Amino acid sequence: NFQVCDRDISEEILSTYLTADRLAVDTETMGLLPWRDRLCLVQLCDPKGQVTAVRIAKDQTEAPNLQKLLEATNTLKVFHFARFDMATLLYHLDIDVNPVFCTKIASKLVRTYTQKHGLKELVQELEQVELDKTSQSSDWGNVGNLSDDQLNYAANDVRYLLNVQQKLVTMLEREERLDLAQNCFECLSTIITLDLLHFKDIFEHH
Amino acid sequence: NFQVCDRDISEEILSTYLTADRLAVDTETMGLLPWRDRLCLVQLCDPKGQVTAVRIAKDQTEAPNLQKLLEATNTLKVFHFARFDMATLLYHLDIDVNPVFCTKIASKLVRTYTQKHGLKELVQELEQVELDKTSQSSDWGNVGNLSDDQLNYAANDVRYLLNVQQKLVTMLEREERLDLAQNCFECLSTIITLDLLHFKDIFEHH
Ligand SMILES: Nc1ncnc2c1ncn2[C@@H]1O[C@H](COP(=O)(O)O)[C@@H](OP(=O)(O)O)[C@H]1O
Ligand SMILES: Nc1ncnc2c1ncn2[C@@H]1O[C@H](COP(=O)(O)O)[C@@H](OP(=O)(O)O)[C@H]1O
Repeated sequence: NFQVCDRDISEEILSTYLTADRLAVDTETMGLLPWRDRLCLVQLCDPKGQVTAVRIAKDQTEAPNLQKLLEATNTLKVFHFARFDMATLLYHLDIDVNPVFCTKIASKLVRTYTQKHGLKELVQELEQVELDKTSQSSDWGNVGNLSDDQLNYAANDVRYLLNVQQKLVTMLEREERLDLAQNCFECLSTIITLDLLHFKDIFEHH
Repeated sequence: NFQVCDRDISEEILSTYLTADRLAVDTETMGLLPWRDRLCLVQLCDPKGQVTAVRIAKDQTEAPNLQKLLEATNTLKVFHFARFDMATLLYHLDIDVNPVFCTKIASKLVRTYTQKHGLKELVQELEQVELDKTSQSSDWGNVGNLSDDQLNYAANDVRYLLNVQQKLVTMLEREERLDLAQNCFECLSTIITLDLLHFKDIFEHH
């Protein structure tokens, strides 16, 4: 249940994933600044646990099937810290991801009893699984020769995300904050537009 | 062209203002924290320059005509730093202001050649008028006995706002940022909901 593709997903994978109502998505890049750091890998996982990692080539500027999938309005795209992945997908592949769920925002809105909203802590608390994060800061640029550790890391970053999301939705419903979460997710596309234009603190007084 | 009302606007003023496509709005309060500092005054100005200041009583929790006006979908409500006024109007009078234009956001998006986005600087650059800001930090709680200086200050905070807004719209169109501004204004109601729940940095990584 783990597949690696080059440059894009196949038509076959596209149609399988399009039948899912939700999809976990993550990216690996050369760093945190989209206008400096290229996109190396895009990972996907559907509710059946089918994981795909798409290797993005240097200077690649489009991935039409990935775009169809990530812009498909009937499939919710679940990210952890969507703000970053959405910005990098828009900047590098011109993909306008929509609709979106962000597990970091959901966690902040409902896990008010902690300040720990990292993916590792979320997966630990909600799935009782210990994620190995040692490959997080590694050289993803050598994308044709990723180590087993890197590929495992990349797959695990999406593997538990849909379960985490489901539990966060249950908590958000319980605390009557699901609508607020939804409204926050709808702000993300404006926020990443501002990020990519290098605007900071547009909503602040100063 | 300057009128003071108690607790709410009259039906007559309501129907006059409802014919306007845009209205400048500002508030004066006892301070910057809605959950601590009460709302004292709501100022309005229409495109003809008709200014109204509504004195809000201590413990007042509604103003039905003001609410109809500020929630009327055909009249754009123009604020300078809408985030604060919207939060205070929602918190104290349960008014969900909509639709909204914020001249501070517009200024930040288009006057990228300066860091000065205060109302005084905006009115100075775009209207060549020198606003007297000495009453800004004054006791607005004594709302039945406001000084002439305070009333003049309150009126001037809305008097130039629609002209400023019009010039900012022209600049936003020229720089092709009007849609982005519009998207930012649409995020405001979510942001003030977060503010009133004391959520901070929901969209940040940390
Ligand atoms: N300022 C920042 N600091 C750390 N991680 C950031 C970041 N901005 C974006 N990110 C991204 O947020 C993810 C980490 O989130 P968290 O710390 O909540 O687990 C990382 O993704 P990866 O886990 O795919 O590398 C990283 O790429
Ligand atoms: N942190 C803050 N510092 C200063 N002013 C703030 C503020 N938060 C909200 N405001 C409001 O923003 C307005 C000032 O904006 P600016 O500094 O851009 O001219 C003030 O309204 P008033 O001018 O009605 O008093 C003030 O009430």
